[in-house]
Amino acid sequence: MDVSAGNVSADTTVADVGEFGLLALIRERLGSTSNLIIGPGDDAAEIAAPEGSLLVSTDLLLEGKHFRRDWSSAEDIGRKAAASNLSDINAMGGKATAITVGLGVPGDLAVAWVLQFADGLAAECAVVGAEVAGGDLTAADSIVIGVTAVGSATRPVRRDTAAAGDIVAVAGELGLAGAGFAALSRGFRSPRAAVDACRVPKPPYAAGPEASLAGATAMVDLSDGLLADLGHVARGSGVVLDLDTASFTVLEPVATVAEALGVDPLRFILTGGESYGLAATFSARSELPDGWTKVGVARHPELGEEPAVLVDGAPYEGPAGHQHFR
Amino acid sequence: MDVSAGNVSADTTVADVGEFGLLALIRERLGSTSNLIIGPGDDAAEIAAPEGSLLVSTDLLLEGKHFRRDWSSAEDIGRKAAASNLSDINAMGGKATAITVGLGVPGDLAVAWVLQFADGLAAECAVVGAEVAGGDLTAADSIVIGVTAVGSATRPVRRDTAAAGDIVAVAGELGLAGAGFAALSRGFRSPRAAVDACRVPKPPYAAGPEASLAGATAMVDLSDGLLADLGHVARGSGVVLDLDTASFTVLEPVATVAEALGVDPLRFILTGGESYGLAATFSARSELPDGWTKVGVARHPELGEEPAVLVDGAPYEGPAGHQHFR
Repeated sequence: MDVSAGNVSADTTVADVGEFGLLALIRERLGSTSNLIIGPGDDAAEIAAPEGSLLVSTDLLLEGKHFRRDWSSAEDIGRKAAASNLSDINAMGGKATAITVGLGVPGDLAVAWVLQFADGLAAECAVVGAEVAGGDLTAADSIVIGVTAVGSATRPVRRDTAAAGDIVAVAGELGLAGAGFAALSRGFRSPRAAVDACRVPKPPYAAGPEASLAGATAMVDLSDGLLADLGHVARGSGVVLDLDTASFTVLEPVATVAEALGVDPLRFILTGGESYGLAATFSARSELPDGWTKVGVARHPELGEEPAVLVDGAPYEGPAGHQHFR
Repeated sequence: MDVSAGNVSADTTVADVGEFGLLALIRERLGSTSNLIIGPGDDAAEIAAPEGSLLVSTDLLLEGKHFRRDWSSAEDIGRKAAASNLSDINAMGGKATAITVGLGVPGDLAVAWVLQFADGLAAECAVVGAEVAGGDLTAADSIVIGVTAVGSATRPVRRDTAAAGDIVAVAGELGLAGAGFAALSRGFRSPRAAVDACRVPKPPYAAGPEASLAGATAMVDLSDGLLADLGHVARGSGVVLDLDTASFTVLEPVATVAEALGVDPLRFILTGGESYGLAATFSARSELPDGWTKVGVARHPELGEEPAVLVDGAPYEGPAGHQHFR
């Protein structure tokens, strides 16, 4: 068939247009690649060299495990796939310049799905001024997505460099995506704000570079849940992070889902995954940038105490964050 | 369980050690990351900024489609996964500095498999002086591998910039991996050199940067087969590439497999996939660098003729190279 966007109907499959036809359609869709020196289609993409140093992060997203086609549109899945990686660059205090995308799809998948997925990737990249630099397309039994983001930071912020005496702060809409996931899991489609946050996270992209400029001592993004992700900071840095639950803002949709399901809304804030917010430590004398809220303090472990995250001075008794294979 | 390499037996599974245990074991295995500013374990890896510009390339490798555990060892699969991406940077005339790896594995997979896979990645990276900078680990029904390579080139060589009058040249062991694949597909385990080339390609890593220095006008790596890959050069550049079969060296194991299967050995050279050799065009007055062999010429299409690859002046009548979804 003649492969051009005008000839793609809702039931045109990937097998109908073939690998090279689909690649041509995707490239049309990604539009201008003005920041790229060599864009999609060559052996590798060429991007202007970053200032300072290069940041690279990669994520694998699998159908049925990380996303479901009956829960999310193709565009939402594209946005989320890009956001989860752009968030990693954000958590280093950096700005992403480009992503590459490996995509495995079944031959009977609608071409329209792939093109809307590409739209989602491009739309999320546009939020931070990054571009889709290239990728790889292959046949797969179910949808497989591998995204890699590259970027740079003036002062990259590690996760294992928090110090005793620091304050702990967070940015982003904590608990919203976790509440949305709980609602969707039980067959609800509302509250809309929570469900939308689960489908398409909104990472606080300004907050990472601003925290770096403000002298953040350590930073992580919140993908597995606040307690799980801060656990890496505590163990990596050899400190105890003690969170004060009174300082958390419980967003209204989070309270609504918690009430409907009869659970403590704090559970979504502390263990809800995929908010793609940020948690960071700052020296006690720092002025927090806009969008950051103090939620705890870092201290030395006491004699015989392991580095860990505490909630109001004690280990949290609720379910833990997500861990694969368990 | 206490997760350290000494406690991993042949039947320890991924589910036994869990996500974070497995990550710790992999990191031990990757050893020193002296060229990395921030290595595996943070939100993103930090690498010294490349000179000139940044090259990025990504590939997705799926069990059963791109590799088989009954054909290849875990280490061989790791080497090949790295090589296929390092080869893309080679084909731009560049040197890779780091790779990131997304890995999806079933919970019942042996930890030993994952560690040997990591050994293979590290060993292949070491050949070019690159490092494993980071990655992502997730649960999957079958093994999914997403590799991204970053690097740089003084003068990146595109694939769509060949000119009429140029000569066409190749580097690497053409046909060997294709002959090995044909042998394995029919249940043979020899000739060893061909089977080994199929399991672990040996890209001519010096040949890419040397071709760039020598002024190559266009270059690609050979993943889908010489005719298929040169087809991108021909169409992208608007030229006809005419190959002279008398100029090809038929390696002895290629001849052996061809004779055993009753096929023309040229078929492996022209259409055999995954050799990860290089094909390039050079201006007619260029002196070819070591390891490069002239195999054809580029010319303007005649009136009514499409840009294409010809073999001894005519379209090749054998089976085409690999295309997904077809």
